[in-house]
Amino acid sequence: MSKKEIGVSSAVINRLPRYYRYLRELYRADILRISSSELSKMMNITASQIRHDFNCFGGFGQQGYGYNVKYLYNQISEILGVQDNFSAVIIGAGNLCRAISAGSIFTHRGVKLLSIFDNSQEKIGLTIAGVEVRPVDELKTFCKQNQVDIAVLTVPKSAAKETAEKILGTGIKGVWNYTNMELDLSVHGIAVQNIHLGDTLMTLCYTMKEQLEKGTV
Amino acid sequence: MSKKEIGVSSAVINRLPRYYRYLRELYRADILRISSSELSKMMNITASQIRHDFNCFGGFGQQGYGYNVKYLYNQISEILGVQDNFSAVIIGAGNLCRAISAGSIFTHRGVKLLSIFDNSQEKIGLTIAGVEVRPVDELKTFCKQNQVDIAVLTVPKSAAKETAEKILGTGIKGVWNYTNMELDLSVHGIAVQNIHLGDTLMTLCYTMKEQLEKGTV
Repeated sequence: MSKKEIGVSSAVINRLPRYYRYLRELYRADILRISSSELSKMMNITASQIRHDFNCFGGFGQQGYGYNVKYLYNQISEILGVQDNFSAVIIGAGNLCRAISAGSIFTHRGVKLLSIFDNSQEKIGLTIAGVEVRPVDELKTFCKQNQVDIAVLTVPKSAAKETAEKILGTGIKGVWNYTNMELDLSVHGIAVQNIHLGDTLMTLCYTMKEQLEKGTV
Repeated sequence: MSKKEIGVSSAVINRLPRYYRYLRELYRADILRISSSELSKMMNITASQIRHDFNCFGGFGQQGYGYNVKYLYNQISEILGVQDNFSAVIIGAGNLCRAISAGSIFTHRGVKLLSIFDNSQEKIGLTIAGVEVRPVDELKTFCKQNQVDIAVLTVPKSAAKETAEKILGTGIKGVWNYTNMELDLSVHGIAVQNIHLGDTLMTLCYTMKEQLEKGTV
């Protein structure tokens, strides 16, 4: 991987997972090579956008020859840390935990789900997505015994701060935060992705409203 | 609302829901007025970014006087269609449906959940989040009898296309799509927000990897 990537804008970074998904499909369909114009058509973005994004990482293709799908897929996987085999635990064994852990979200991205933690006696001891639900009290010990990189927070907003504090000192380096309470743990050297599912519902409503006003619907 | 908003970039639009959340908190805490520097500090973005974003809609504040929280909250609500009282149905009564419908995602954004649809005999007839789960076969009739604006797709990827086709001709104008299959229904005049929960997990892994490489963790 080229070291040209230093200082890549967050807009470019945020677009990489979408490239990853498309390249994964192409790779699995045994497509060997794709031009930027084909990729552009498939992904509904301009070819110049694609070239710009890939150039941030030193390119990946040869002019007029297209991209080698396997190579590109591997490069983007590496950039995104898919090959780093990060491990994760989920804190909060509710419906969102079940929804997130049931599919292939973790495995498709090289992340291994090690355990789930909850406070409820009804949930402790259950097996969800092949892993055991353990009491939150055991989080620190578990993290010491198993190297845990990521905590997924699916507890209610009211328990967000308290749960975030339990993560400090466990060696966890990243938080995928679904609590709807924005967390900033940068002073502790912990990266956070704050997820607000409702935000995209609002963007959808905005688009619908705009289309209705323009009379395009 | 100023009509200056025509042609506002999607980056600005995507930031509006976050302003909405913060202003909602301020409004509920009876804060009457806030300066762009206070809002900047709270939201961890620059004051010039805030001024730029708000200027896309004709401003909202007076120089040196700050923003009137209630006015700003109402303006952003209006821009985002919160006051349009859109209605929604969810198709797919699984864990994600339960997670999304249990909280205040819909009500906080002015969207009324009217019904949930599923094919499973075990789920039909259940009450989830106060609404009845109906058979998918009844979707068209239900939409004709009740004006439904939004379909939330929480069916598996394998059922995505088939379910999207069932929406056509129902009057539904927007799709909040959690199937992990990207849909484009623009030729049918239907707006789509394609959600890929795994994308932000990858962005998190990227950030963690970058921090580890820089040795900042």
